[in-house]
Amino acid sequence: MKLDHFQQLDENDPLAAHRQLFYLPEGRIYLDGNSLGALPHDVRQRVEGLVRQEWGQDLISSWNQHDWIALPRRVGEKIAPLIGAAPGQVICADSISVNLFKLLATALELSPGRRVILSESGNFPTDLYVGEGLAGLMGPERCELRHVPGESISEALDGDVAVLMLTHVNFRDGSMHDIRELTRAAHECGALVLWDLAHSAGAMPVELDACDVDMAVGCGYKYLNGGPGAPAFLYLASRHQEQAAQPLSGWMGHQRPFEFENSYEAASGIDRYLSGTPGILGMAALDTALDVFEGVSTRDLRRKSITLTQAFIDAVLEQDLPGIQLLTPQNPDRRGSHVSLAHPHGFSIAQALIERGIIVDFRAPDIVRFGFAPLYNRFIDAGLACQALSEIIHTKAYRDDRYSKRSRVT
Amino acid sequence: MKLDHFQQLDENDPLAAHRQLFYLPEGRIYLDGNSLGALPHDVRQRVEGLVRQEWGQDLISSWNQHDWIALPRRVGEKIAPLIGAAPGQVICADSISVNLFKLLATALELSPGRRVILSESGNFPTDLYVGEGLAGLMGPERCELRHVPGESISEALDGDVAVLMLTHVNFRDGSMHDIRELTRAAHECGALVLWDLAHSAGAMPVELDACDVDMAVGCGYKYLNGGPGAPAFLYLASRHQEQAAQPLSGWMGHQRPFEFENSYEAASGIDRYLSGTPGILGMAALDTALDVFEGVSTRDLRRKSITLTQAFIDAVLEQDLPGIQLLTPQNPDRRGSHVSLAHPHGFSIAQALIERGIIVDFRAPDIVRFGFAPLYNRFIDAGLACQALSEIIHTKAYRDDRYSKRSRVT
Repeated sequence: MKLDHFQQLDENDPLAAHRQLFYLPEGRIYLDGNSLGALPHDVRQRVEGLVRQEWGQDLISSWNQHDWIALPRRVGEKIAPLIGAAPGQVICADSISVNLFKLLATALELSPGRRVILSESGNFPTDLYVGEGLAGLMGPERCELRHVPGESISEALDGDVAVLMLTHVNFRDGSMHDIRELTRAAHECGALVLWDLAHSAGAMPVELDACDVDMAVGCGYKYLNGGPGAPAFLYLASRHQEQAAQPLSGWMGHQRPFEFENSYEAASGIDRYLSGTPGILGMAALDTALDVFEGVSTRDLRRKSITLTQAFIDAVLEQDLPGIQLLTPQNPDRRGSHVSLAHPHGFSIAQALIERGIIVDFRAPDIVRFGFAPLYNRFIDAGLACQALSEIIHTKAYRDDRYSKRSRVT
Repeated sequence: MKLDHFQQLDENDPLAAHRQLFYLPEGRIYLDGNSLGALPHDVRQRVEGLVRQEWGQDLISSWNQHDWIALPRRVGEKIAPLIGAAPGQVICADSISVNLFKLLATALELSPGRRVILSESGNFPTDLYVGEGLAGLMGPERCELRHVPGESISEALDGDVAVLMLTHVNFRDGSMHDIRELTRAAHECGALVLWDLAHSAGAMPVELDACDVDMAVGCGYKYLNGGPGAPAFLYLASRHQEQAAQPLSGWMGHQRPFEFENSYEAASGIDRYLSGTPGILGMAALDTALDVFEGVSTRDLRRKSITLTQAFIDAVLEQDLPGIQLLTPQNPDRRGSHVSLAHPHGFSIAQALIERGIIVDFRAPDIVRFGFAPLYNRFIDAGLACQALSEIIHTKAYRDDRYSKRSRVT
């Protein structure tokens, strides 16, 4: 297959220069930024300085001197414009799982007489598991998790639903929900909405305020490039904040944490969604990682993401590869920034691609995911990935035994 | 005051050489390791290597290649011998606040017909706040938080108590509970116990298994030196694990997280206490920080801790400083590894000490804390701290206006 087309697209890419902000390993094409974002150069320096100077030298005084104490809010406010949130509504804390628990509990409390968390079958598992955990704790009279196929969501919205919890871009097939439309449908039935933006934030515009969204969570380590296991973020619309309580009421969410009072009094605003002491190494890395978005419009990110995924999809379809099935919607309005291909030998194909330097990932039972991070992936990456895939399929290289060994994380 | 005595104690200190494992700022005496432990040299290298090589170069493959996925268990098993736990009972995850929530919910579930979380007034606030948060979520029929003064704990243990939640060493006055005795008292009334080891782990032996403790949590960033906001740890005795459920049931606590199933099935053993994706930067720092305990017996740590705090207490009492009140028990069996002094001008005294290079901290309303980390503090540190304190009190230096300005974290 010809690669000129991809090279030309790179030449005309207005975001091409941003790739230089990242460290990317030589000789490999990294298409897994939807799982772990690449390392921005400045993050390395920030973390090294944090350890040597702030922790090593300035020690405890750094909570004030280097303003560690403000990091959860500062990082939250850096994320806010990427997800269409006015100030005071986003905070960086804990993991998506833990933040989901806080917000689902809030949603139930804000919805007297309603007890159902409605979600989608095949949602990212942690979302369902956390809903299940909360329901188990509260008991069936007060909380129930229901999940239905995507196409049945509208009809499942009834007067029992306290909150509709959905993931914007599906981790498995890359399909994307319409936040505006589903938020409106939920509100029409009197339910709140909670959006999981794990595969959206940093790759496309999200308009939480404009779509009247109630709650959201998202991931720091995918398109936000905050590093492995980076802390997550949490959004709660201002209109709900003063009535909102959350059960993980740790000391950092207290109105006066350093008065060490016996009774909890929730901090005003979004700060009440903090629990314990924030992990400063991870949060500082994310803080600096977010600087790569300076001067970048989310519309430009989206434009490049669509063009990248389209170029890849077109090339794959053109090859007409036996056994390969495109799971991701061809309609760009219905997909996120990764492309999922199914194949009966998906696992081995992923391994064969990785051996050829094309870093993708595998999702059970048979899916190979190609993630396109618009800030650092090139069009030629898409072309070379398709070329390698084509070679593996045509030569049946995936039959090689060495590609079949599973490791713990796949 | 004379310092020869302290120098002599240093010369005879069998742990003296361990100080070289830490980076300690020149010209300062750091007595706040009970709030933020000092930086072990090897941690700097580990974090730098992690960022450059594991994240930057090896990217997503590091979950297997560098075994990131095993870190929560590996770090847990490194902590286990420090707290008297056989393997398979300790995991590193989240914050103390979040872990308390998991365990308190478990305790209620394991105690049918009992609904009270009993604690001590003046316990570290997050412990009380999280109990309050869980009680608020579950409602008064199913959960109530009660806290009573320390001397009333035994009589407050009744048939309603599901779990007695106490902190081993009090953050405010440095006093220490008897784990064995109080665990026995709780068990006699049919309650479980949950010990918060924030100010114990890494400074003294703790015998969780031998004392038949049910549950414990502890801190990674104090005497374990894991860095600012390091992840916490959680202990659940093996005998409870298979019946135990916890509501923060994120994907990392699933039996088969990478099968991405719709329904939650708790992992076997302690792994079910994981929730979301672990923060790898913070956890790797703690992993390496724990290596400083290699070859060190917790009894030796305790011996030095007692001698250090005793030398400081004796020197302070000998000075008979006006207005200074010793809050920490003089009986070494009743105190942890920090010494708390109260003074009406406590805040300004702490600032004046810090200006003189003696790094202590202040706890409202009037307490100056002197933390002695037995792995890196010297006896001369205790002597010089007492000397500076004496100078400040005798000259009334604390009256200087520049010592009265409060910052957000004190």
